[in-house]
Amino acid sequence: MALLRGNDYIESLKRINPEVYIRGKKVEKIYEHPMFRQTINHISAGYELAHDPLYKEQAVVFSEISNEEIPRLQMHIQKTKDDLIKKAILTREISSQRICSGCMSNMLSVTYAMIHDIDSMHGTDYFPRFENFIKRIQKNGELIAWGMMDPKGDRKLPPSKQPESTDLKIVARKKDGIVVNGVKLHTTFAPCAHHVVAVPCRALSEDDKDFAVSFAVPIDTPGIKMIARPSPGPSHEVSIESPLSSKFLGVEAMTIFDNVFIPEENIFMCGQWDIAANLPFYFASLHRQSKCACSAGHADLFAGTAALCAEVNGLGTEVSHIRNKITDMIMSAETAFGCSLGSVETGFTHPSGVYFPNAVIANSGLNSIRSSIGTHISHLHDIAGGLIATMPTEADYNNPKLKKYIESALKGSSKYTTEERFRALNLAQDLAASRLTGTILGFTINAAGSPETNRVVVNRLYDLKKRVDISKQIASIEI
Amino acid sequence: MALLRGNDYIESLKRINPEVYIRGKKVEKIYEHPMFRQTINHISAGYELAHDPLYKEQAVVFSEISNEEIPRLQMHIQKTKDDLIKKAILTREISSQRICSGCMSNMLSVTYAMIHDIDSMHGTDYFPRFENFIKRIQKNGELIAWGMMDPKGDRKLPPSKQPESTDLKIVARKKDGIVVNGVKLHTTFAPCAHHVVAVPCRALSEDDKDFAVSFAVPIDTPGIKMIARPSPGPSHEVSIESPLSSKFLGVEAMTIFDNVFIPEENIFMCGQWDIAANLPFYFASLHRQSKCACSAGHADLFAGTAALCAEVNGLGTEVSHIRNKITDMIMSAETAFGCSLGSVETGFTHPSGVYFPNAVIANSGLNSIRSSIGTHISHLHDIAGGLIATMPTEADYNNPKLKKYIESALKGSSKYTTEERFRALNLAQDLAASRLTGTILGFTINAAGSPETNRVVVNRLYDLKKRVDISKQIASIEI
Amino acid sequence: MALLRGNDYIESLKRINPEVYIRGKKVEKIYEHPMFRQTINHISAGYELAHDPLYKEQAVVFSEISNEEIPRLQMHIQKTKDDLIKKAILTREISSQRICSGCMSNMLSVTYAMIHDIDSMHGTDYFPRFENFIKRIQKNGELIAWGMMDPKGDRKLPPSKQPESTDLKIVARKKDGIVVNGVKLHTTFAPCAHHVVAVPCRALSEDDKDFAVSFAVPIDTPGIKMIARPSPGPSHEVSIESPLSSKFLGVEAMTIFDNVFIPEENIFMCGQWDIAANLPFYFASLHRQSKCACSAGHADLFAGTAALCAEVNGLGTEVSHIRNKITDMIMSAETAFGCSLGSVETGFTHPSGVYFPNAVIANSGLNSIRSSIGTHISHLHDIAGGLIATMPTEADYNNPKLKKYIESALKGSSKYTTEERFRALNLAQDLAASRLTGTILGFTINAAGSPETNRVVVNRLYDLKKRVDISKQIASIEI
Amino acid sequence: MALLRGNDYIESLKRINPEVYIRGKKVEKIYEHPMFRQTINHISAGYELAHDPLYKEQAVVFSEISNEEIPRLQMHIQKTKDDLIKKAILTREISSQRICSGCMSNMLSVTYAMIHDIDSMHGTDYFPRFENFIKRIQKNGELIAWGMMDPKGDRKLPPSKQPESTDLKIVARKKDGIVVNGVKLHTTFAPCAHHVVAVPCRALSEDDKDFAVSFAVPIDTPGIKMIARPSPGPSHEVSIESPLSSKFLGVEAMTIFDNVFIPEENIFMCGQWDIAANLPFYFASLHRQSKCACSAGHADLFAGTAALCAEVNGLGTEVSHIRNKITDMIMSAETAFGCSLGSVETGFTHPSGVYFPNAVIANSGLNSIRSSIGTHISHLHDIAGGLIATMPTEADYNNPKLKKYIESALKGSSKYTTEERFRALNLAQDLAASRLTGTILGFTINAAGSPETNRVVVNRLYDLKKRVDISKQIASIEI
Repeated sequence: MALLRGNDYIESLKRINPEVYIRGKKVEKIYEHPMFRQTINHISAGYELAHDPLYKEQAVVFSEISNEEIPRLQMHIQKTKDDLIKKAILTREISSQRICSGCMSNMLSVTYAMIHDIDSMHGTDYFPRFENFIKRIQKNGELIAWGMMDPKGDRKLPPSKQPESTDLKIVARKKDGIVVNGVKLHTTFAPCAHHVVAVPCRALSEDDKDFAVSFAVPIDTPGIKMIARPSPGPSHEVSIESPLSSKFLGVEAMTIFDNVFIPEENIFMCGQWDIAANLPFYFASLHRQSKCACSAGHADLFAGTAALCAEVNGLGTEVSHIRNKITDMIMSAETAFGCSLGSVETGFTHPSGVYFPNAVIANSGLNSIRSSIGTHISHLHDIAGGLIATMPTEADYNNPKLKKYIESALKGSSKYTTEERFRALNLAQDLAASRLTGTILGFTINAAGSPETNRVVVNRLYDLKKRVDISKQIASIEI
Repeated sequence: MALLRGNDYIESLKRINPEVYIRGKKVEKIYEHPMFRQTINHISAGYELAHDPLYKEQAVVFSEISNEEIPRLQMHIQKTKDDLIKKAILTREISSQRICSGCMSNMLSVTYAMIHDIDSMHGTDYFPRFENFIKRIQKNGELIAWGMMDPKGDRKLPPSKQPESTDLKIVARKKDGIVVNGVKLHTTFAPCAHHVVAVPCRALSEDDKDFAVSFAVPIDTPGIKMIARPSPGPSHEVSIESPLSSKFLGVEAMTIFDNVFIPEENIFMCGQWDIAANLPFYFASLHRQSKCACSAGHADLFAGTAALCAEVNGLGTEVSHIRNKITDMIMSAETAFGCSLGSVETGFTHPSGVYFPNAVIANSGLNSIRSSIGTHISHLHDIAGGLIATMPTEADYNNPKLKKYIESALKGSSKYTTEERFRALNLAQDLAASRLTGTILGFTINAAGSPETNRVVVNRLYDLKKRVDISKQIASIEI
Repeated sequence: MALLRGNDYIESLKRINPEVYIRGKKVEKIYEHPMFRQTINHISAGYELAHDPLYKEQAVVFSEISNEEIPRLQMHIQKTKDDLIKKAILTREISSQRICSGCMSNMLSVTYAMIHDIDSMHGTDYFPRFENFIKRIQKNGELIAWGMMDPKGDRKLPPSKQPESTDLKIVARKKDGIVVNGVKLHTTFAPCAHHVVAVPCRALSEDDKDFAVSFAVPIDTPGIKMIARPSPGPSHEVSIESPLSSKFLGVEAMTIFDNVFIPEENIFMCGQWDIAANLPFYFASLHRQSKCACSAGHADLFAGTAALCAEVNGLGTEVSHIRNKITDMIMSAETAFGCSLGSVETGFTHPSGVYFPNAVIANSGLNSIRSSIGTHISHLHDIAGGLIATMPTEADYNNPKLKKYIESALKGSSKYTTEERFRALNLAQDLAASRLTGTILGFTINAAGSPETNRVVVNRLYDLKKRVDISKQIASIEI
Repeated sequence: MALLRGNDYIESLKRINPEVYIRGKKVEKIYEHPMFRQTINHISAGYELAHDPLYKEQAVVFSEISNEEIPRLQMHIQKTKDDLIKKAILTREISSQRICSGCMSNMLSVTYAMIHDIDSMHGTDYFPRFENFIKRIQKNGELIAWGMMDPKGDRKLPPSKQPESTDLKIVARKKDGIVVNGVKLHTTFAPCAHHVVAVPCRALSEDDKDFAVSFAVPIDTPGIKMIARPSPGPSHEVSIESPLSSKFLGVEAMTIFDNVFIPEENIFMCGQWDIAANLPFYFASLHRQSKCACSAGHADLFAGTAALCAEVNGLGTEVSHIRNKITDMIMSAETAFGCSLGSVETGFTHPSGVYFPNAVIANSGLNSIRSSIGTHISHLHDIAGGLIATMPTEADYNNPKLKKYIESALKGSSKYTTEERFRALNLAQDLAASRLTGTILGFTINAAGSPETNRVVVNRLYDLKKRVDISKQIASIEI
């Protein structure tokens, strides 16, 4: 029964009651609150993918853990090259349509691998607990909010050396569970999920062992509080403006754990500080392979929108400077996507069964498209024209007294009506000159780790010594 | 009496009553309407510059036309190298503080030169009329809204060949004046100005002669209607969020001329189609020299904000990747600014007395920084961190129940309070992840002509034949 | 017996006597001529790969055509994903050591596919002939010089419309064969091969049908003349200078067919103008997938040499600006290589059995690294330092009177001797400041088709209409 | 009598007899040695500039020091904005024709300023000595070889801490002079100069005071030995190949001081370690202002040659991708040149009278064009085509048996003869695929200080704190 419909999901929200705030006020019924409209719609669309004839085949996969058909992007433990390839193709496709494909299966898979490591190294038995949790999620079609990033405070100090750390931490160990305290940042879409799963976000030393904690917990557990940041689009439905952000994307959130009790069976890591670094390390590999595909999808969307604007403006895509800029977007997309696929070829299978891609390729490809996003946005301004920042709004267009002027003033290509042009320019505005622009930039630059983390991974894993040795051999310098 | 104070300006708005719409509704009292708050504040700040001890010396200049001290950036006819240099320095300074320095003196100067050309070529007497108009403006401290860009419709056709052109056009010639019809786009800040001055925006042929028109007219003249697009920031005052856009920048507007009568003495061009191209040509030179300085100021602001965020986050500007990205912003600023100054050295004096810079240098420098703006924005995301897209809002922070959590979760460098960090991140958000981001991009990419127009100017004016000949000489190929 | 040793190859050259010129003079014994030293050494090294314990496993493959073990890079018809992956890995490895891996199996495979197309479309029987030729080559371990690029003359005209075309052309059709006339350019290494195979290089129309010709012919066939361009390194062996180019790389050549008779059994295409375009089209896919890997190898070599120079200079790779530049080279390599592998995933099998990669990914990846090569070379100058352009030569170093001064003046890191530093800087000089630099640039920019051809392929194959339609859907514009 | 002719200069070489080595052998008569042909020709051309009707006016300037007309680029102390502007214009012009304009007046001016500082700070009287030396140089038209860069050994240690430093050093102080020992690297063209002037190249501490030394000395003083590195072109005259490098550019050299006695009157600095840093600091300002113009000239030459190749190839500069690449070169040239001019505007006058430009602008502009040189070279390959790396040589072309084939095979545009095309492609080869390419890269990347030194200067001089304060003000953070 894992392949819920969007409506099943919305119904499920009525059965939970998390403590959520937005713009300073407590939210009573999330499922009715206008500021969560897009979030819920976005997540519903993710559930619907499994029922969409166009995507069904790629979007649904059979899980050997739960013996259920499950949605690939949200709930699948990726164990084969084919899993990674199919995920990448689908991720690009969906993110080209609504920016975020909701590929939470990456976090699930890397957590799965990390917990397997704990048991291997420490002889514990967290892994079966996590498998049980996965079974439950897959059977019920429940959504996880991932709590990975700690606030970190002064970044030069480890959590145990902070004056007052708010990184998530075990504050009491009881017979049947633990009590945790602290905050997780960047918990995207979290107020509309069913569970929070906390995982560590960095290497820890023995002194930091209370910060080495992982668990799952229902989001309406007492003590959990979420402060949501509004999604980028308008809270009310509009007809022309913000065509993407008025329907999709969602809230961000800070998730606070104020002395939250976690029962034993939901704990997946408890003090194994030596394993903490594995999670961000695996994440840097598998999630960035997805991120290459995701960013490729964004470039596709920019290319398509730029081409559409060139058409409605009447210049068309044959004008050489326009064509060149669109081709740059396309090649940027294909290069990143090529690396997403190519990283799979030379990956490896983790003892847990999770397949990891070649992290050097995935990080290099991601770095490449990250460096280009600013240019893509600039090119879209260039091609769509100054109007996206100066044109009248939908309300003006709907005022009949003004409409006649706008109709004639904004007339472009004779192949399109003014309204079509106005709609196209509003899409360009949504992508390149709105709060959504900031969200896309945030997604591209900082989500899945900052650009500097790409470089760190590449430097750590590329065998530069081998390359120096080859140069020495050529130059006849003894190795 | 030209050096008005900001309050004089605001008072002056009470004496005019233009027909302005915003979000579909007619605006009654612009000076009280919250959606014009920033625009009026921004313009007032421009007037105040002349009284600011810090800037006074550069911001005030003596006009030989009106025998008055006048504000340099808004009203001066630029006739010397020194005029261009001082303007560039001041422009960079102001745009580094509030994005737009209001350098309308460029349009004034290029129009001055074009009208001089008309009289020279056609033996007309428009130039004295325009000088009179300038005298009035300078004496009264009145603000001009420039109507330059026509809608153009199908861009592959000249206005006279359009199925139904809405480019501004003479529709009747009467004894004591003309009647004009049509639209001007991108009339920035126009609803808060005193006069509209229309000028042509492209080369015209004889068939297009009715589109060769220039004039000045009070903005509350019957038949003039403006549809304003809200300024990028919030219409209400806020304390922490959007610290720049809640105070500065302003509305854009579409200005409609619905059978507007222009009396003879306000007409500066009337059918001289052969001169129309001069205006965009001069504009491409003088205004882009300013634009280099303006964009340099933006890069300064990005560099300063990035450095501030690095500080409040606790990493500081000494971290090498952070330092490098900031240095890139700085060098981008200095390169563009260097070209702004350098273009002055090899310019020329137009017969009207206006001094024009070297357009090849100005356009090359502008192209250089335009290519970098997307990267600067990306770098600011990178340095400020993901929080700028996910952090709680001001309203959350002001809710005492939530504040304590936010206070500890967002604590960064021990040298700053959390509120200071929160404020700094909100500035980064305003610059890199908000509607203001779109405005900055629009200003950078499309204002003052699109990037392709930079290339067109460079290709037209650079002496490539000379360079080919030098290559031929070196290769011993007969020239 | 296809796995010849290098010496077998050199012996084989004694049995053929092609008409070859270099620097204006006829070459008598190529195998003894100093200006062919590197070429022969380079090719020999290619043969030796099959016997090198380190590479043997990847370098040797079993051919079902000849039932022989054959060298993969030189002679294999690529029919599986695995073929393309293994080739890419080996190509990167070898080109990182000596710039050119000799991956002639790409031309063999694309010609194989094109000839298959001819028979399919025209009911001819060229394909078995070509298979016989492959059998021979594979059994005897013979080397092919590929004659693909025609001179083209005035590029705006097809061959049949040229005033006097020297594109290769059928000038007589006889009972037992044809006579051909014309020239093929860029026939790399050709004077040291055994056969020339001619193939078409562009789309042809019916009028051009005499230019639609493909055949194989021994290189010492009467009428074939080759004008060789010296390889980039010195013709004499040196000990320190030019450590790479004094041993590897090779001659380029122009190959002239002066009324050369081609017997029937060696003809693979004869007038089928409609198929001519297939060859460059297939080439643009399979060969560029290799080229991505090849260019990645170059970037590896630049990275290794830069790191070595940083070491011998005493600064080391930990200096942040040095590290950053090396990381840029690495990420450039990995991105291109990722695309080489990634293009394989979404390729297709041609009816002949040849497997073609996804050309959009391969061309995008290649374009990406091509855009970076100039920067890599600049970075190597930057890291190695000015000495690579100003230091004394090997002969100075070998003069004992001068050596003592050089020894102390060029002393760098205490971990290396001056001679080691001198050797390392000479390698940097060879790569970044010598005629080899030009060869590497030529290989990168123009070999396998110019950068513009990458863009043409991407534009032809990327489904931009689909992307426009998605944008229309989002903006609610009817498709 | 300072305005020597080229021949006067050549005659003067016969009167001196320096100890020079090239390729390991001692050079007897430099003025007859083929390997110094280009160097001497290049320098002569510099002298001839003062007599060339085309350049005379800019190239000659009146010196108030010697009361002579002198060649501006070689011998002038730059004291006004106009000096810097005229120098920049002339530098760009000459370097666009022969890469190196010989702008040694920069070193003269910065040394002049440094020596002035010594006297100001230490009450010494070196400055009058240096003025006497300048008088002599200007009167006799003598050429200085500048010895600035020390070998530095292990770069992490100051000279006094090196195991065995070969940085130039005072080893004995005698009654009437000093004895110096050590080496100066990168002494471009030095074997063909009349004097060597040594200056310090870095900041020194008190322990390093023996390295704080500056003096002038005839190059044939006993104990001075020079090891020359051959100039990039062929030593013999050629007619078609290497059209630039066979005539221009010159040798590099390492200059050894083996216990050289310097008489008192020629010493300009002797132990004033605290002033040593001033020289590289001034150099980083004035010389980089020149370097911007010099690099702009190179880009002009690349643009002209690319356009010429496009013409002879028959595609022409109207093909959009060709045009775009050429426009990129042009804009790169103009941006750097704009910064060269623009840096002058906001400079300052040193107490010695030398005028220094704004170093932040000069370094930013230089960094900008340095980042582009690799791309310019790549673009020239792209536009000229693969032939520049594969075509027959001049000797082949001169062999009548081969010429006929080459004539027809290399025929391009009908507007040019094959020989003209061949000549044009040989120029492209000289610039982009020869040892000259390496020289140009070396000149661009490392001459006048490496790219990292640009960043250091910018970071040191840009007022980042002011920018942070502006951001704080906007964000309402207390400063």
